[in-house]
Amino acid sequence: MESLAKARIAELRTLLKKEGIDFYIVPTADFHSSEYVGDYFKMRSFLSGFTGSAGTLVVSENEAGLWTDGRYFVQAEAQLAGSGITLYKMAEEGVPKIEEYLEQHVKDGQTVGFDGRVVDADFGRKLEKQYSLSYDKDVADAIWSDRPPLSATKVWIVPEKDCGMSVSQKLALVREKMDEQCAGHLLLSKLDDIMWLYNIRANDVDCNPVALSYTFLSKDSAVLFIQEEALTEETKQYFSENSIIIRKYSELTDYLESCEINGKIWYSGEDINYFVYKLIEKRGPLIDLENPTTLLKAVKTSVELENIRKYYLLDSVVLTKFLFWMKRNVGKVPVDEYNAAKKLDAMRAEIEGFLDLSFETISAYQSNAAMAHYSADEKKASKIMADGFYLIDSGGQYIGATTDVTRTVALGSITDEMKLHFTKVVCAMLRLAETKFLYGCTGRNLDIIAREPLWKCGLDYKHGTGHGIGYILNVHEGPHSIRWQYKPEQKETVFEEGMIVSDEPGIYIPDSHGIRTENILEVVKEQKNEYGQFMGFRHLTYVPIDLDAIDINYMEASDIEKLNAYHKAVYEKLSPHFEGAELEQLKHATRFV
Amino acid sequence: MESLAKARIAELRTLLKKEGIDFYIVPTADFHSSEYVGDYFKMRSFLSGFTGSAGTLVVSENEAGLWTDGRYFVQAEAQLAGSGITLYKMAEEGVPKIEEYLEQHVKDGQTVGFDGRVVDADFGRKLEKQYSLSYDKDVADAIWSDRPPLSATKVWIVPEKDCGMSVSQKLALVREKMDEQCAGHLLLSKLDDIMWLYNIRANDVDCNPVALSYTFLSKDSAVLFIQEEALTEETKQYFSENSIIIRKYSELTDYLESCEINGKIWYSGEDINYFVYKLIEKRGPLIDLENPTTLLKAVKTSVELENIRKYYLLDSVVLTKFLFWMKRNVGKVPVDEYNAAKKLDAMRAEIEGFLDLSFETISAYQSNAAMAHYSADEKKASKIMADGFYLIDSGGQYIGATTDVTRTVALGSITDEMKLHFTKVVCAMLRLAETKFLYGCTGRNLDIIAREPLWKCGLDYKHGTGHGIGYILNVHEGPHSIRWQYKPEQKETVFEEGMIVSDEPGIYIPDSHGIRTENILEVVKEQKNEYGQFMGFRHLTYVPIDLDAIDINYMEASDIEKLNAYHKAVYEKLSPHFEGAELEQLKHATRFV
Repeated sequence: MESLAKARIAELRTLLKKEGIDFYIVPTADFHSSEYVGDYFKMRSFLSGFTGSAGTLVVSENEAGLWTDGRYFVQAEAQLAGSGITLYKMAEEGVPKIEEYLEQHVKDGQTVGFDGRVVDADFGRKLEKQYSLSYDKDVADAIWSDRPPLSATKVWIVPEKDCGMSVSQKLALVREKMDEQCAGHLLLSKLDDIMWLYNIRANDVDCNPVALSYTFLSKDSAVLFIQEEALTEETKQYFSENSIIIRKYSELTDYLESCEINGKIWYSGEDINYFVYKLIEKRGPLIDLENPTTLLKAVKTSVELENIRKYYLLDSVVLTKFLFWMKRNVGKVPVDEYNAAKKLDAMRAEIEGFLDLSFETISAYQSNAAMAHYSADEKKASKIMADGFYLIDSGGQYIGATTDVTRTVALGSITDEMKLHFTKVVCAMLRLAETKFLYGCTGRNLDIIAREPLWKCGLDYKHGTGHGIGYILNVHEGPHSIRWQYKPEQKETVFEEGMIVSDEPGIYIPDSHGIRTENILEVVKEQKNEYGQFMGFRHLTYVPIDLDAIDINYMEASDIEKLNAYHKAVYEKLSPHFEGAELEQLKHATRFV
Repeated sequence: MESLAKARIAELRTLLKKEGIDFYIVPTADFHSSEYVGDYFKMRSFLSGFTGSAGTLVVSENEAGLWTDGRYFVQAEAQLAGSGITLYKMAEEGVPKIEEYLEQHVKDGQTVGFDGRVVDADFGRKLEKQYSLSYDKDVADAIWSDRPPLSATKVWIVPEKDCGMSVSQKLALVREKMDEQCAGHLLLSKLDDIMWLYNIRANDVDCNPVALSYTFLSKDSAVLFIQEEALTEETKQYFSENSIIIRKYSELTDYLESCEINGKIWYSGEDINYFVYKLIEKRGPLIDLENPTTLLKAVKTSVELENIRKYYLLDSVVLTKFLFWMKRNVGKVPVDEYNAAKKLDAMRAEIEGFLDLSFETISAYQSNAAMAHYSADEKKASKIMADGFYLIDSGGQYIGATTDVTRTVALGSITDEMKLHFTKVVCAMLRLAETKFLYGCTGRNLDIIAREPLWKCGLDYKHGTGHGIGYILNVHEGPHSIRWQYKPEQKETVFEEGMIVSDEPGIYIPDSHGIRTENILEVVKEQKNEYGQFMGFRHLTYVPIDLDAIDINYMEASDIEKLNAYHKAVYEKLSPHFEGAELEQLKHATRFV
């Protein structure tokens, strides 16, 4: 049987020839640099047959290549079999990056093409320096006859009482920042920024409560480009009351080509797509800078923080009960990674105000937990036994918070090395949570507090220590983070009171076990004195640390104090929600060591 | 009596009028952005009467202002009395920076002037964007009739056996870096970079064994601009043998105006002076980048490291004996801060290979140690009694090392708070010294390891944690450092094996006490595994930590282990150099706690 992919690539080549395009790039992205993409945007998957969440297809007359990362090598090899597509294993030695591949293959006078709406401006500008580009056509669209429509879920409003700031207050703050930069306009295309600005939400991206939209601000007007189907009478009235002008999502191009421009246009080159960039490039002087909404949104209002604290506690109660159930029933009741996740998801859905998961639950047993981004498949999920470690990383969207939490628990016997690893990870998490620092520190200063106990043992985790989290928005939200690597010219963000950030060190031993302990922390002010303003963190997550996996011989006296203090707080916070045997289990789980 | 300064400022104003200069800036700098300046360069002091080591004078028709920092407010007020010069206290609220002052006062069409040779290119370029500049005359020179001549000490050669790399090897490395940047030429004006490149030293800047010089490299030639008086037959022959072309120091201008240029000229805008910058600006495309010599010089050769280890030990022996003498004799023999410093300086001078001090010894008793950059004056030095803390920060230049070390010792009773502070500082120093980190870390990652135990107590020190150190060169040497503050666009330097760096946390309580404990560390490679190359430090300084000021109740078990391990090593290293009662004192001073 002829591969479907082979046929589709052949069709694409015919179209490319007509368009005069020699190399065509199909990335995995929507028009807004979102973390996940909706079905409409799965063109790379449609063309190549490879269904992983990350990958880029490059098609030329002589070759079709697919670039993906280590998570997907096995899957991609299987799915690409017979397609004639070459698999380029990213980050493997000798494998060229896409930019390098193009440099090696594109000849003088040849054209590189892509749908400019799914490529960010930064990447597009790199390419335009080297090649003649075709970016204004979605060439492959003609092949995909049953392409799903763009998602257009109904927009709903977050009342001011649930977010603490009105649209007009937010617009005033954004315009202050525009004045500071002498910008006459601001173009936003990052969906969570737009949702935050207008106090709206929808459901157009998996697990991200956002609506496909753009917005263009001037000193005295705010225009929101959004699909008509997403609006109701209520939301139309809301926008009208707030003097937000509504235009169709598809009208952005015409608008940017013809609207009146007064002053510089502010945009963010890593967020905006190249097609839109080319539109505003023609309209006058530009400022390429992080969106002002990004930092404003990261600092939660007191109303948001109150809701966040409440929902993190409810979320902690549910995860704790789930883990207690696992501890009690494993080995007695048949359970696998997939149905364990479903059980937790269902328990979470019982919380009043629950909207959705904030990401697909990662439920990983034993060595599966050592694989980054492991996802338990219904058919191939591992059975969970009364032995070794089980890791669960999960979170929910609530009308009042976006949560994220990871716990690893011992379900039976574990080795001394596993105890060492688990204990070190717990020390790392607690040390970072308890650290005090002067105002002005960024995540690059703090990362080593978590990583050092592991580095001392010659261990490390190949992911960041922490990321920001949205408010009823994306579970991964900038601009702050906790990472150590130095990248020249990379902007860093100082920790501000009211930010929230994850604290999630881990240890992953391939083919053996994976451990991660993740709490979410709130940034708070501590004392202010002649040295400056001291800052610290407060826990938002209150889920016991599994003492069955702790060996206090691997802890400093102060680590033990921290663990006991944390468990004291966990008991105090959770106990009103527990009773009977479960309350006893909670008491035992939070005992002092 | 009319103030001398008043008369000199009046004379200067007459000259400025003639030259058509409205605002004239006199900074404290030589032609090479050196840390200290020779007598020839003390124009600001000559004109204003203010003799502090840092300050900038700005003279206009209506006002003369002097900017200096907190160390010198009292001194400047006294010395400026009657001069008519306004004191601008830098960093005080409401006090404009010089740039702001100029913005407020310079009117359209007015000219800002300075001797372009004593202003760095970065500053000059900022000013040229706003003002019409006069930079090619040293206007005030005509007033200073008995101006001291430029220093022109004799150049001497560091034999290859003492530095481990020949001039031709170094030139080859530098030219490799030039090739990487596609640079045809390199202009160096940083004196320690030039000394390093040619394996030469002299004595033109206090405590810095350097010769006033410039060098201009092309792919196949190296021209050294240096004062004739600095050369001997031997050094002339050395340069000739190494194909280094010698030109007079004063010939640089003519040379840069007329030499053949092939390709881009590499320079460093923060090091080079503005006058020289304007010369090369006319000659073609430029690359503004950290000098390639800066990083090369920071990574010591194995020969240098061997010498460094040897001299740090000899230097440690001397400081330890000095501190033991202080401990034995304080309260019995009269001693003050000044003659204590002289005693240590004399002891250090006895070490074979001693050349000079690496900086003026800081000898500070009790509350004097709380003042940054305190310098004991012969006439006003405090008497040292058998009570409280004494701090000594000192170092030497040897044919084989530049040393730097600080110890604080209790000379009698100290309060519990002083013990807490001393103990925390020791923990900070030892934790940083013992930390392990992945290759790729910079000083901004590591700083918090030292600072965190202090931050936890709401304390801080307002200086960096660490700086690089030269090899028979400047005691402060880049490009690496250990600091935490985030400055956008500031380049950071990754720690490389063979770098050396100071580790010097402190606590300073005004009017009470000051504590600093400074060891110098060598950067070493630790294990390499699947996570990457781990790095660590090794002590170069072996001087006991005063156990009389330690309270182990303020330490973690691991801190106590570190202290005991350090003292074990101190005893092992130092004991061969001690005998009799002093050996007993060493045994006692390095006992386990």
